[in-house]
Order: sequence, then structure tokens, then C-alpha cells
Amino acid sequence: MSAFPDWLVFNEQGLIPAIAQDAATGEVLMLAWMNRESVAETLATGRVCYYSRSRGGLWRKGETSGQTQRLVELRWDCDADAILLVVEQHGVACHTGRRSCFFNAWRDGAAAVIAEPEVAPKILYKARD
Amino acid sequence: MSAFPDWLVFNEQGLIPAIAQDAATGEVLMLAWMNRESVAETLATGRVCYYSRSRGGLWRKGETSGQTQRLVELRWDCDADAILLVVEQHGVACHTGRRSCFFNAWRDGAAAVIAEPEVAPKILYKARD
Repeated sequence: MSAFPDWLVFNEQGLIPAIAQDAATGEVLMLAWMNRESVAETLATGRVCYYSRSRGGLWRKGETSGQTQRLVELRWDCDADAILLVVEQHGVACHTGRRSCFFNAWRDGAAAVIAEPEVAPKILYKARD
Repeated sequence: MSAFPDWLVFNEQGLIPAIAQDAATGEVLMLAWMNRESVAETLATGRVCYYSRSRGGLWRKGETSGQTQRLVELRWDCDADAILLVVEQHGVACHTGRRSCFFNAWRDGAAAVIAEPEVAPKILYKARD
């Protein structure tokens, strides 16, 4: 395993927010959380691994759905308390079947859904059906 | 003031992470935090206002530096616990004088600075000198 960017600032839960951005299109795909172990695994394998707060463990993106993310570059911000993952997204990023998780917008004082699913969630997660 | 997206999920400190993305270039500029009041102000004024965790108060982006962000669209993700602000960035987003706060990358097992300041911080903050 390679060296580690030791200056990254994890919060009191040991987590740091990580933005995933599509390397090809620049689209912001999702925001999730990483702990030290998931950052180390992501750097070592080149496959993005988050920390699931709901499950309380490592979340190897795409493990169930097949919609993996290959790491192109890991970046961090001026305060080292946020990560930007430039990724190659295999398939869609969102569990709803949409490319990006940010498919809701505030338009004219109301919520608007601005992207439709490209694949049905039940197909994404058929292994679990 | 317009209605408010009441379903946004704020954490135990009353905050939600917000990504700012350049509307023209797609560049991810920064990640900061918002509270309910800063979201409401941003929607009402069209000028991005964050919550400064270090100062413990509203942070009207560009108030000191002049490097304001005009809101093009506010989006949120599938869990409604993260915000994406599509913005017109006036000048640079980072207090170091760089366009984006994400100017550090992990390359070949070491840190690399991948963007240089476009303006000197002492010029950005001359009002405070």
C-alpha cells in the first residue's frame, strides 16, 4: 500500500466528506463519506470505497449494483477537510438509477425532478431480489 | 421570502454540506456548510451564503474578498442530506487566490499542487490589511 495523505482532517466521527465527479463530463455524481480505512483502500485499489454511516462499515461502491467507480484522481481542499474524487463511473451513480444523485432542483419556489432514471432500481439490485 | 425545501436534512449541528460547482465550466469550486438560515437567505437573495463553522455565523461568500457567488440553481441529492449549488463565481473561490479549493492531488504516492493562485491573497483581502 502506498503512503497516505496524513494531513487529511477527519471529523469527530472519523469521517471526511467526499464528492465524486465524473472525469469525462464534470458532472457531480454524489457526496458520501470516507474514513481513513476507505481512503487507504481507494488509493491502494483504484476502486472507490466509502464509509456507510447507515451500515457502519466500508461501502465498496458498486459491490451490490455493479455500478463501480474507478479512481482517476483523489484531491483535497485548502483546509484538507473535504475530498474530491475524480472518477470513471461505471453505469449510474445513484441508487435510484439516475446518473447523479443530485436530480432535485429548486425552481420557481418548488421542487423539480430534473433527471429521470436510466435504469430501474430493481434491475440494479436484482442480485438482492 | 419564497417557500423553503423543508425536507432538507440538517445534521445534529443544524448543518448540511454544500458543494459549489461553476455553472460555466463544471469545475467543483469548494465544499462548505449551510444552516437553514443560510439556505433561506441564498434562495431569497440569489447570492450564496454559507454558515462558517469557525466563526459560528452566516458567511456571505465574498463579503470581504469581493469574490461572490451568484446562485444559478440549488439542487439536493437523493437523501436530501447534501446540497449542490450551481453558481456563477465572481473571481476566484478559494481564499488562497485559486479558482477552486481542490488544488491538491495525490499523484504517485505524494501530494502535488495542481493549480496556482490567480490573485494574491493579500490583494483579495486588502480591505482587512
